Amino acid sequence: MSGRERVRTVLDSRLVQRAVILVIVVNAITIGCETSAYLMERAGDLLHTIDRVALAIFVLELGARLYAYRAAFFKDPWNWFDAIIVAVALIPASGPTSVLRALRILRALRLVSAVPSMRRVVGALLTAVPGMASIIGLLVLMIYIAAVIATKLFGDIVPERFDELPRSLFTLFQIMTGDDWGNVAQEVMEHKPWAWIFFIVYILMSTFVALNLFIAVVVNAMNEDGEAVRQSRAEPSPELESVKRELAAVNAKLDQLLMRERPEELRSPADR
Amino acid sequence: MSGRERVRTVLDSRLVQRAVILVIVVNAITIGCETSAYLMERAGDLLHTIDRVALAIFVLELGARLYAYRAAFFKDPWNWFDAIIVAVALIPASGPTSVLRALRILRALRLVSAVPSMRRVVGALLTAVPGMASIIGLLVLMIYIAAVIATKLFGDIVPERFDELPRSLFTLFQIMTGDDWGNVAQEVMEHKPWAWIFFIVYILMSTFVALNLFIAVVVNAMNEDGEAVRQSRAEPSPELESVKRELAAVNAKLDQLLMRERPEELRSPADR
Amino acid sequence: MSGRERVRTVLDSRLVQRAVILVIVVNAITIGCETSAYLMERAGDLLHTIDRVALAIFVLELGARLYAYRAAFFKDPWNWFDAIIVAVALIPASGPTSVLRALRILRALRLVSAVPSMRRVVGALLTAVPGMASIIGLLVLMIYIAAVIATKLFGDIVPERFDELPRSLFTLFQIMTGDDWGNVAQEVMEHKPWAWIFFIVYILMSTFVALNLFIAVVVNAMNEDGEAVRQSRAEPSPELESVKRELAAVNAKLDQLLMRERPEELRSPADR
Amino acid sequence: MSGRERVRTVLDSRLVQRAVILVIVVNAITIGCETSAYLMERAGDLLHTIDRVALAIFVLELGARLYAYRAAFFKDPWNWFDAIIVAVALIPASGPTSVLRALRILRALRLVSAVPSMRRVVGALLTAVPGMASIIGLLVLMIYIAAVIATKLFGDIVPERFDELPRSLFTLFQIMTGDDWGNVAQEVMEHKPWAWIFFIVYILMSTFVALNLFIAVVVNAMNEDGEAVRQSRAEPSPELESVKRELAAVNAKLDQLLMRERPEELRSPADR
Repeated sequence: MSGRERVRTVLDSRLVQRAVILVIVVNAITIGCETSAYLMERAGDLLHTIDRVALAIFVLELGARLYAYRAAFFKDPWNWFDAIIVAVALIPASGPTSVLRALRILRALRLVSAVPSMRRVVGALLTAVPGMASIIGLLVLMIYIAAVIATKLFGDIVPERFDELPRSLFTLFQIMTGDDWGNVAQEVMEHKPWAWIFFIVYILMSTFVALNLFIAVVVNAMNEDGEAVRQSRAEPSPELESVKRELAAVNAKLDQLLMRERPEELRSPADR
Repeated sequence: MSGRERVRTVLDSRLVQRAVILVIVVNAITIGCETSAYLMERAGDLLHTIDRVALAIFVLELGARLYAYRAAFFKDPWNWFDAIIVAVALIPASGPTSVLRALRILRALRLVSAVPSMRRVVGALLTAVPGMASIIGLLVLMIYIAAVIATKLFGDIVPERFDELPRSLFTLFQIMTGDDWGNVAQEVMEHKPWAWIFFIVYILMSTFVALNLFIAVVVNAMNEDGEAVRQSRAEPSPELESVKRELAAVNAKLDQLLMRERPEELRSPADR
Repeated sequence: MSGRERVRTVLDSRLVQRAVILVIVVNAITIGCETSAYLMERAGDLLHTIDRVALAIFVLELGARLYAYRAAFFKDPWNWFDAIIVAVALIPASGPTSVLRALRILRALRLVSAVPSMRRVVGALLTAVPGMASIIGLLVLMIYIAAVIATKLFGDIVPERFDELPRSLFTLFQIMTGDDWGNVAQEVMEHKPWAWIFFIVYILMSTFVALNLFIAVVVNAMNEDGEAVRQSRAEPSPELESVKRELAAVNAKLDQLLMRERPEELRSPADR
Repeated sequence: MSGRERVRTVLDSRLVQRAVILVIVVNAITIGCETSAYLMERAGDLLHTIDRVALAIFVLELGARLYAYRAAFFKDPWNWFDAIIVAVALIPASGPTSVLRALRILRALRLVSAVPSMRRVVGALLTAVPGMASIIGLLVLMIYIAAVIATKLFGDIVPERFDELPRSLFTLFQIMTGDDWGNVAQEVMEHKPWAWIFFIVYILMSTFVALNLFIAVVVNAMNEDGEAVRQSRAEPSPELESVKRELAAVNAKLDQLLMRERPEELRSPADR
């Protein structure tokens, strides 16, 4: 067994995998604790130390995996996922940018790649996305068109909601989720009483498309089942197979009977 | 190859179709940019020029399609869709009405007819509508009845929500979407404490009907699957076909055996 | 043809049924118009006249149906539905009670019994209810328990929401629909910071049960499909039937062959 | 029949089970009445007496069941459920803690264990939970990560919503339910205009995962159906069975024919 194979065995052992999961969970908790001023005052150094140790373990584990699998390492998208998360975690150490520091918690996402059942769930979620591309495209197109119309028609009346295209997009996304749309509509309707047409058409259409997006996902999920039923139909049933075998035996015996009596006629029953 | 056939080949070529999609996308973006005062100040002329060029391309493409397909042009509803959108886009050029100018962005909907996968999605959405007609009718009837009752009972108490039938319809649509209904109900209940009966019955019934509307769509979508399974049952399975062929051969050989020995008896085994 | 049969033929004729639907729709519109002070001032007499004529037509039609079908009239629940609606419509004429006057619009519900497709939809909705009884019972039990707890714990703190059991029930129904629950919870949490446990547990549980209520309806709707597939499996397939017929013929011919040669052995092949 | 068997027969009799259900319902109503100051003033003693009698009946019934079933009593999880509820109900009698007194209403949950159809529903709900564990875990992970990020980025700007991790968790749970998220986002966006990215990504992702949680439940519920169809496929159809029997008869008769003529060849048709 070469050194690389030994490293692979160690990495794939249950103990190491559980240890990595434990480090991820502990690190996620310590990063959460760092948001508390009270805890930072009392145990700030400890939290930072744990954080640095956890990061070191991640780098080590990733390096070991890279050494053990070499080219194969880059074939598994989950390895890319882990590598990017660890890489992002290494950046904030070099700069004081608050956003990047806040994103350190994304390391907790490594839990997804470390726990097999979560990996499967996320995989299933992602495979559902391509089938929904057209409906998502339609939804985005609808929101864009509605936002352009709303900006032109209502931009002067309710500038705090529709003054520019980005703000209109945000407002219309909010309306699509059904949050507080009554108030937005009423603000506009004070000046343009016919504006209810716009809002109701928009809500009905976006809800209908979103509903169908939902249905697309459900139907896709169901199709696996339907597929399974159809496949079970396509493959020969064992019952019918035994019928066929028996029938072949019957046929063979009849051939015997026929051949035994007038073998010369067997091949040409038509010319009798 | 006639001139019309050559035009058809050009129109259906991948390059031309992609170019049209590109023009639609670029035009949608420029119309979006026109909503920005900042961009209009700096690049207003450019945006208007692109807009006019895009419109010219749409008119040209539509004319070419009309020339190439003649009567067949009007058989495809998507051609009607495109023709109406381009026609609407030509109107605002002749008048300064703000609403019509805002509707120019509807041109972006041409993306739906230009991208085949979007065409299919919209087609699927539209075929789902007729099956829901009865439930939608029931929902509209319920909202109308509730609005008449609410106008009569609560019109004097909360006039800003229920003074006239149209406003009641709007308020009840808002309540059906679940937006802010608690506040509306509480305003009314300050004067008529028993009003909760109306609101809760209305919410339960409209939600239940809307839920069934939803289920109707899902079940319709599923039925294609169920249909497929049932059809696969109805069509003769290849397995069973081979059993039948073999059985026919067995039968024919038995006839041979019987006929060979006492051919006169074969047709009348009963009178033996 | 007796007089009763002639009345039946007239009542069931397409023309009469469409006329009744028209009267229902016109009456629904005029009752809606009566809510408008502007229209009542100008055309109040006309609206009242139409209303009275429509009611007379309903009474006449119902009387004719009762005469034509006699005992059979009371077997169809939709006739009961119509009779009750018309009876309710006759009451307000005798008294000035505003609530009963407002309920006159319920006459528009006759549209449901007059249009066959709506009848089917409502029938389907009602058949779905018994299957959901247990889950609805569970949901009601949960809301009741939560309301008693909320009244005892939060009644003194936020009396405008939880002072008495009925008000708590209303508030908790509102929270279950997800309307404005964040504010309600925050009001309570100002005094009892641990109250988030109550609200989050309540929202998770009620949403989960409501979700399963929804699933029960979907699964019931699907079961018809599943049922159909299972039935199509249970009934003999025509394919297999022809195989069986052919096999019976083969068997009969073999009997002929066996009997012809050594008929005495046919019945007892075992003792050879 | 021993004493224990007689007790069992009595406990399982319909009359006793209905009586227990009645006591549960009456007790739930009286505990509800105790929340009303008006009723407590007038009939407080009566309510307390009913409560104590009901509790005594519960203890008695549970004791009888324990006596009748002994060890088997602890095998049914519903008995544990009843025992814990009654035990909790006995605690508040010994102390004046308001929370425990409020939890007395949990006794009404005994209705679930006493009514068989509710028992089945709750059983079905609980069996659905394990299949959703991974998706729930993913959802919790997402909310946790988002809460840490929000606390770090928005904690100083909108302290009343994001100052500490627990409050951020509550706010993000509220946003996930779609309640009032527009206002929360706008408060933050006044200081950090790019915050819409955070909120929209969070809403899209959490809604998508919650949607898939929902789908997992539906698909699980459906699978029973699919399972049933597949099983009905696997078990031998009675049709095919009769075909096989007939074919076996045909085969046996052919063997007779063959054996009768040249019995020595029957076992070795290959060497002819």
